[in-house]
Amino acid sequence: MGAKNGQEFISRIDQLKPEIWLDGRQLEGPLSKCQEFKGLLKTKAALYDYQTLPENSAEMTYRSPVSREKIGISFLQPTTKADLTKRRTMIDKWARQTCGLMGRSPDYLNTALMSFASSASFLEGKENCFPENIQSAYERAREQDLTFTHTFITPQVNRAKFYLESSEEPISAKIVKTTTEGLVIKGAKLLATQGGLTDEILVFSAPKLLPDPDEAFAFTLPSDTEGVRFICRESFTNGASTFDYPLSSRFEEMDSIVVFDNVLVPWDRVFFYQNPEAASQFFSISSFHPFTLHQVITRQVVKTEFMLSVAKLLVETINIGEYSHIQGKVSEIIISLETLKALLEKSEHDAQPDQWGYMRPSIIPLQVASNIYPAVYPRFSEIIQLIGASGMVTIPTEKAFQSDIQQDLAQYLQSATKSAEDRVKIFRLAWDLTMSSFGTRQTQYERYFFGDPIRLAGQLYRSVCSDSSYCMIESLLGPLEKCPE
Amino acid sequence: MGAKNGQEFISRIDQLKPEIWLDGRQLEGPLSKCQEFKGLLKTKAALYDYQTLPENSAEMTYRSPVSREKIGISFLQPTTKADLTKRRTMIDKWARQTCGLMGRSPDYLNTALMSFASSASFLEGKENCFPENIQSAYERAREQDLTFTHTFITPQVNRAKFYLESSEEPISAKIVKTTTEGLVIKGAKLLATQGGLTDEILVFSAPKLLPDPDEAFAFTLPSDTEGVRFICRESFTNGASTFDYPLSSRFEEMDSIVVFDNVLVPWDRVFFYQNPEAASQFFSISSFHPFTLHQVITRQVVKTEFMLSVAKLLVETINIGEYSHIQGKVSEIIISLETLKALLEKSEHDAQPDQWGYMRPSIIPLQVASNIYPAVYPRFSEIIQLIGASGMVTIPTEKAFQSDIQQDLAQYLQSATKSAEDRVKIFRLAWDLTMSSFGTRQTQYERYFFGDPIRLAGQLYRSVCSDSSYCMIESLLGPLEKCPE
Amino acid sequence: MGAKNGQEFISRIDQLKPEIWLDGRQLEGPLSKCQEFKGLLKTKAALYDYQTLPENSAEMTYRSPVSREKIGISFLQPTTKADLTKRRTMIDKWARQTCGLMGRSPDYLNTALMSFASSASFLEGKENCFPENIQSAYERAREQDLTFTHTFITPQVNRAKFYLESSEEPISAKIVKTTTEGLVIKGAKLLATQGGLTDEILVFSAPKLLPDPDEAFAFTLPSDTEGVRFICRESFTNGASTFDYPLSSRFEEMDSIVVFDNVLVPWDRVFFYQNPEAASQFFSISSFHPFTLHQVITRQVVKTEFMLSVAKLLVETINIGEYSHIQGKVSEIIISLETLKALLEKSEHDAQPDQWGYMRPSIIPLQVASNIYPAVYPRFSEIIQLIGASGMVTIPTEKAFQSDIQQDLAQYLQSATKSAEDRVKIFRLAWDLTMSSFGTRQTQYERYFFGDPIRLAGQLYRSVCSDSSYCMIESLLGPLEKCPE
Amino acid sequence: MGAKNGQEFISRIDQLKPEIWLDGRQLEGPLSKCQEFKGLLKTKAALYDYQTLPENSAEMTYRSPVSREKIGISFLQPTTKADLTKRRTMIDKWARQTCGLMGRSPDYLNTALMSFASSASFLEGKENCFPENIQSAYERAREQDLTFTHTFITPQVNRAKFYLESSEEPISAKIVKTTTEGLVIKGAKLLATQGGLTDEILVFSAPKLLPDPDEAFAFTLPSDTEGVRFICRESFTNGASTFDYPLSSRFEEMDSIVVFDNVLVPWDRVFFYQNPEAASQFFSISSFHPFTLHQVITRQVVKTEFMLSVAKLLVETINIGEYSHIQGKVSEIIISLETLKALLEKSEHDAQPDQWGYMRPSIIPLQVASNIYPAVYPRFSEIIQLIGASGMVTIPTEKAFQSDIQQDLAQYLQSATKSAEDRVKIFRLAWDLTMSSFGTRQTQYERYFFGDPIRLAGQLYRSVCSDSSYCMIESLLGPLEKCPE
Repeated sequence: MGAKNGQEFISRIDQLKPEIWLDGRQLEGPLSKCQEFKGLLKTKAALYDYQTLPENSAEMTYRSPVSREKIGISFLQPTTKADLTKRRTMIDKWARQTCGLMGRSPDYLNTALMSFASSASFLEGKENCFPENIQSAYERAREQDLTFTHTFITPQVNRAKFYLESSEEPISAKIVKTTTEGLVIKGAKLLATQGGLTDEILVFSAPKLLPDPDEAFAFTLPSDTEGVRFICRESFTNGASTFDYPLSSRFEEMDSIVVFDNVLVPWDRVFFYQNPEAASQFFSISSFHPFTLHQVITRQVVKTEFMLSVAKLLVETINIGEYSHIQGKVSEIIISLETLKALLEKSEHDAQPDQWGYMRPSIIPLQVASNIYPAVYPRFSEIIQLIGASGMVTIPTEKAFQSDIQQDLAQYLQSATKSAEDRVKIFRLAWDLTMSSFGTRQTQYERYFFGDPIRLAGQLYRSVCSDSSYCMIESLLGPLEKCPE
Repeated sequence: MGAKNGQEFISRIDQLKPEIWLDGRQLEGPLSKCQEFKGLLKTKAALYDYQTLPENSAEMTYRSPVSREKIGISFLQPTTKADLTKRRTMIDKWARQTCGLMGRSPDYLNTALMSFASSASFLEGKENCFPENIQSAYERAREQDLTFTHTFITPQVNRAKFYLESSEEPISAKIVKTTTEGLVIKGAKLLATQGGLTDEILVFSAPKLLPDPDEAFAFTLPSDTEGVRFICRESFTNGASTFDYPLSSRFEEMDSIVVFDNVLVPWDRVFFYQNPEAASQFFSISSFHPFTLHQVITRQVVKTEFMLSVAKLLVETINIGEYSHIQGKVSEIIISLETLKALLEKSEHDAQPDQWGYMRPSIIPLQVASNIYPAVYPRFSEIIQLIGASGMVTIPTEKAFQSDIQQDLAQYLQSATKSAEDRVKIFRLAWDLTMSSFGTRQTQYERYFFGDPIRLAGQLYRSVCSDSSYCMIESLLGPLEKCPE
Repeated sequence: MGAKNGQEFISRIDQLKPEIWLDGRQLEGPLSKCQEFKGLLKTKAALYDYQTLPENSAEMTYRSPVSREKIGISFLQPTTKADLTKRRTMIDKWARQTCGLMGRSPDYLNTALMSFASSASFLEGKENCFPENIQSAYERAREQDLTFTHTFITPQVNRAKFYLESSEEPISAKIVKTTTEGLVIKGAKLLATQGGLTDEILVFSAPKLLPDPDEAFAFTLPSDTEGVRFICRESFTNGASTFDYPLSSRFEEMDSIVVFDNVLVPWDRVFFYQNPEAASQFFSISSFHPFTLHQVITRQVVKTEFMLSVAKLLVETINIGEYSHIQGKVSEIIISLETLKALLEKSEHDAQPDQWGYMRPSIIPLQVASNIYPAVYPRFSEIIQLIGASGMVTIPTEKAFQSDIQQDLAQYLQSATKSAEDRVKIFRLAWDLTMSSFGTRQTQYERYFFGDPIRLAGQLYRSVCSDSSYCMIESLLGPLEKCPE
Repeated sequence: MGAKNGQEFISRIDQLKPEIWLDGRQLEGPLSKCQEFKGLLKTKAALYDYQTLPENSAEMTYRSPVSREKIGISFLQPTTKADLTKRRTMIDKWARQTCGLMGRSPDYLNTALMSFASSASFLEGKENCFPENIQSAYERAREQDLTFTHTFITPQVNRAKFYLESSEEPISAKIVKTTTEGLVIKGAKLLATQGGLTDEILVFSAPKLLPDPDEAFAFTLPSDTEGVRFICRESFTNGASTFDYPLSSRFEEMDSIVVFDNVLVPWDRVFFYQNPEAASQFFSISSFHPFTLHQVITRQVVKTEFMLSVAKLLVETINIGEYSHIQGKVSEIIISLETLKALLEKSEHDAQPDQWGYMRPSIIPLQVASNIYPAVYPRFSEIIQLIGASGMVTIPTEKAFQSDIQQDLAQYLQSATKSAEDRVKIFRLAWDLTMSSFGTRQTQYERYFFGDPIRLAGQLYRSVCSDSSYCMIESLLGPLEKCPE
């Protein structure tokens, strides 16, 4: 056991029989043969292969404290700053295999589970809380190198400030019964990326203003549990040609609505239930945010490097590097890249051990990065479109280059520094990154990765502005007295 | 003859045999049966039907001065401000049939031809200039209600400031020979929208810094002239379902590279050739810019109304109208809409007859609008994505609504004010408008409609800043003397 | 009587004995001799002279319907579109005399009074309302060419959403008693621009969320009424040299807090009181907003022209017109200028008579302009600073040019096209406009002229989005049904 | 000798007799008695006192390698990363004494001299270069704790791209003669901040496109050298009251034009001359940029903290922390602050020893910070104005609070959490920081601190984009071949 390779990944996935609905039909046959999923699964298999290559072993794996098997470093519970660097290195390596474009590469949820386990003691002795189930879920995942997705968003029915669901039947997934065997869940959750395409699914509820106890729970289930149904959006794979769709053919992850049709969650799968206060505190006190943000920002740094290299390659291809507005636009990406790298490193340098002895990256620099990225990523996409200009539209397909008009293309689509074929490949890459349905979904994904940007700013404001000492100002104005109120 | 209806349009188009290449194969059979083009052609047919309905006749047509047939108002040479209003009304009506999304609705090139004819006298007596051919092209188009596309951009090989093409064979289309029969053209031009899908094609060269006499020409040709080849980009039709692709299934216009493979242009088709100075002056002195801008801004006003209505409908659907940042975002669209309408009307109010007696809309307000639109349109698209948020990704397809999971969808995708089916239709519309490959091409199209935005600002700067009187300043500072230099 | 000239203005002002506090001392002696006010009063006197010059008479005045004297056109109650144009022409002329920098030129409050009078019938028969007093105040002002200021803002004690004043003594001005003679008012109002420097003061309360009947009133008083006290902020005059301070020496208007120290308002001065509903309706139903916005935008157009000319003159002075980023920045101002002009004209073209027969400019274009200006004005200021760069700091004074180092200055501060003296005058102008305490107060003034920008966007949103017809969308998606709720 | 205290500073400055012109008169008497300079000199004296306090000695000073006296750490030539941290700590401490508002606190030029000395070997053996003079200037400054200003900008006569000075007499300072005693300099340089108020002045020429050998020099001189003339701009001190002008009364530094009227520079003062190539290389190869940027960014971090605290205090004062747009605005400052801190630390973590053994901070993060600050600082200023709103204008003076109307002020200017006096002090602080002539000069200063922002972006672009490897892209597209050119 321990860290698995690509083949093991595929064979395990192909044994699953999840209920997945796509474009009005239910999937049949092994997942890895499905047109819409095979590109993604192949890419994930390559990640697993990568970690098991002997030359990568040191950077990608460590020895299980239990089994002594080599296991993936994304499961590592860090206790030193060096451990954080190790984690970052591993995350960075995987991210480079996918140009940072796989938002739900396995290390993301491995990290989430690791953080839950590292803070599980918080739930010790609290009503309806089972920290031991968190620990065992984590260990099972770690030792078997299981893949996960997660789902936690409430359906977007009504986004008014004060809204209470009033439907007779549940819309948002709820506990409708508790039995001796476990919880029974009915309703839906949004948006499980790779929903149905992983071994297991982690389900929990994001804290909210007016919590309903029946919506306060967390658990894991195998993806093919009875009554769990994944309803896919339209696929953005576009096609199988890596010439035409260099990104969507490989990295389209799919998002799905998860329906729970009276699903039984066995007790030994439940992390906690019907204790909104504990649930809410757990998310703010646990290391979930610092560790997952650390993973996410590491990936986003790589993605930003990739965006920068695409921008630079376009500039080089049509030879426009002399224009100051072009230099300015490319510099914007450089500035964001260096900023994100600096914030990420600062979060490690300023790391502190938490109350359970785990070394947590400092949260403020990561929060800052998570406020920056949703604003700059769409701008990167825009910059690439502005650099590409009309070239983003002049994009014949692979087959055109194999047809009788290939001479025309060779002559009329050549560029200052590239053959027509290379030039069209480059522009199609830029298009797939920013203008295909895959590319725009990437933009929307990064824009909302951390939630509503306005809420993020509010959180950061509160993190920093609780302190109200005004040393420098008082050195100028003298001590400021408060009015009697 | 005169204004045609939809059936006449289709039957004429289906008789054309243009050489069109799409995804590596050459098209065969009638155009209106081609999967990639039939949505567009049906939409255009509906426009032609619209103009021939008796109830629309007054607003859409006028009597030919020659044949006394009813002909389309987009051909009208205006001599009064009332004529301008008539033209705007007609353009507005057609634009509403396509929500402003058809950039090359027939009135665009009808207007261009009309403006050429209205200024043709300028070329009278100039070397290698044939104003009479412009006049006859215009009259033929007007009386037969011909459809046109045009092409004038040089291939994007090298965009450096000082670049001279050095390829042995022409890349940019050039005159390679003149014979007793006409010009012989070899090379390519970018991007003919609807290239190959119109009766004729209008070809000319945009003025440039270092003009090559062999690239200075203008002419028209039937689309199926021998040696003319249209190479399409990938189609963005996506599919035929108007539920899934309410816009791309109807309005995808296609862009193509036009290759001239030693094409003979008969003399009676030539407007001018090998006279770069006349060519360049013609574009700046003729009414081409005022009249085409007037058409374009009218369409963009309608498109902006459409964007606004989509934004409002999203807000209403998920009930988020109470948030001040949402109000602010919608207000941004309102502000642009009202601004464009005001500028358009000002161009008419300030219209002046030109030297040939035609009533020209004032150019400055139109130039201003053409500086504004490329900046605000991408923002509209972004605003719609920001309002739609995660709902832009939760988009199952039509078939899902007809399958066994329709009850799930009905329950879990309902919204505050809409059924699940309506809600998904609305969000799919928003997605197709801003995030599908069709939608992003719309964004790129509007961004570059008038050319490079930086150049547009430079033109406006020069239009306005040539004047250097400083009355108000001198009233404060006294007369400003110039230094002896 | 009728329209007065400058001398009449000064002599009348000098007879007033208002209680004005400035930098801790109470003013004594005639206002026009006061260092801080004499520049402003001289500038206003010049406006009054301008209107009485024979050559300006036709554009600046009309015949009183009562006295047949010539009176100022800003008092004209328009009943035709031509009247609106007349009003705009007059406002524009005066604005040009002050480069648009005098926010409270007399026409502003003349217009306000005129609009109140034109809608006074609305208050007929309502409790505690005296429309006849509005009419007589208007007529008195018109026939005697009185100058006014106004004040309506509540002190900025606490800007939380739900705040009720809890001080024992009033902070915000309130009715503390009603007697047979009139209302007795105690408390303060912010910010009376030119407070104390006008014949009379117009006092009213802006509608608010939780209205207090004792704060719902409107009346006028002579500036030197007993108990009315004007507390000035620091003066931004800077100095008397028009070389050093070409703007602040002339246009600094002063803002003051108005304290009402148990002030008696005679009944014949009261417009209404203790009827919050009528007060609130009056502001939304009367023509106050359309007419005052029409005046304001006219002035802002002139101010924008002035900003543009300053920007252009800087560019010319140091010869930087060839840079595309400079062209872009200047174009931004051009775009705003043309936009404002177009919106202003559209408000006139779309004008409609109101229920009392007065011709109202269309409100939407004016609201749009009032949303645009607070955003673009600070940008104009920034653009001028960006163009001026280090030149904005290299600003020796008038006296330096009259001293022994004048040769040094002549040599080292000369510019590409200007003598050192002209160049420094020009840069000092740019500095006084954007960087002196006068200039930054102008920025803050325009930013908040119409109130909180976020609230403005909300108002515009509500004005436009109440309509929820979706024709174009339904033509694509079919009729949208509402869910049963 | 060694690190001096405030009294020593003042007494030395008062012995200088520089030729300073202010508002048309030449200064007489000791500098510290001059109204316009005494606030600044007192503030600088306090810095020198601070460094000599026993409790600050360890953080502020080190032992001279020569004299073993305690000398200021800003002179320390760092050879380890710990040295960099030491330098940063010292710089930070001083910056806190001035809220980051003194752009030319002594450590800035101490650092510049230190960097010159640390790279002087580069000039060894080059024509017209005297590295030994650099070393001795550095040692003299260090051991005597001399203060410096510098000047290097060419007068802004003509900013066209290709401009060659054509005046008969020099405008930009030039070598007009070389004699046995030294160079003779004639012409002017801009803008010496604190010009004339320091012991010595460092003069050099910034590298430019078309270098003139006679403008390529570097040297130092005592401020009262014969023929050196400082021409001040208008003073922005405003007044002496620290209530009214808490910042300008203390931190106004003055900028002056430096005129060289045939000034003799003795040979032992010359660093290099008439060797444009060496001059240009010296600036790019020496540690000047990394070390001065490290100083500047450290100060700017403190200044940003100060801006943040002012913003927070305004929010608290009028109780508007609940509004999401206010939270968003404050968060913008937080984001910039954390970003700058992270970049600064990264420059230290990534430091590398240079060829002469000195530990250089990494330049890229510092360059990025220097691209960010000119853009965000003006936004901070705007945010403070937006938060303060009308309160920025309601600012009576200190004397008002001591007059008969103090009760009115106490009642009507109180705020949610502060007395009227405190509230006005706070708003006057915010005004002096962003809206007084002092505050706007601060904005312009930070905007142009590092030079033209467009050029800065170009430099960053070139620093980063010289590399053209495209690993991630080639992993997707295959190897990209270059066209034969």
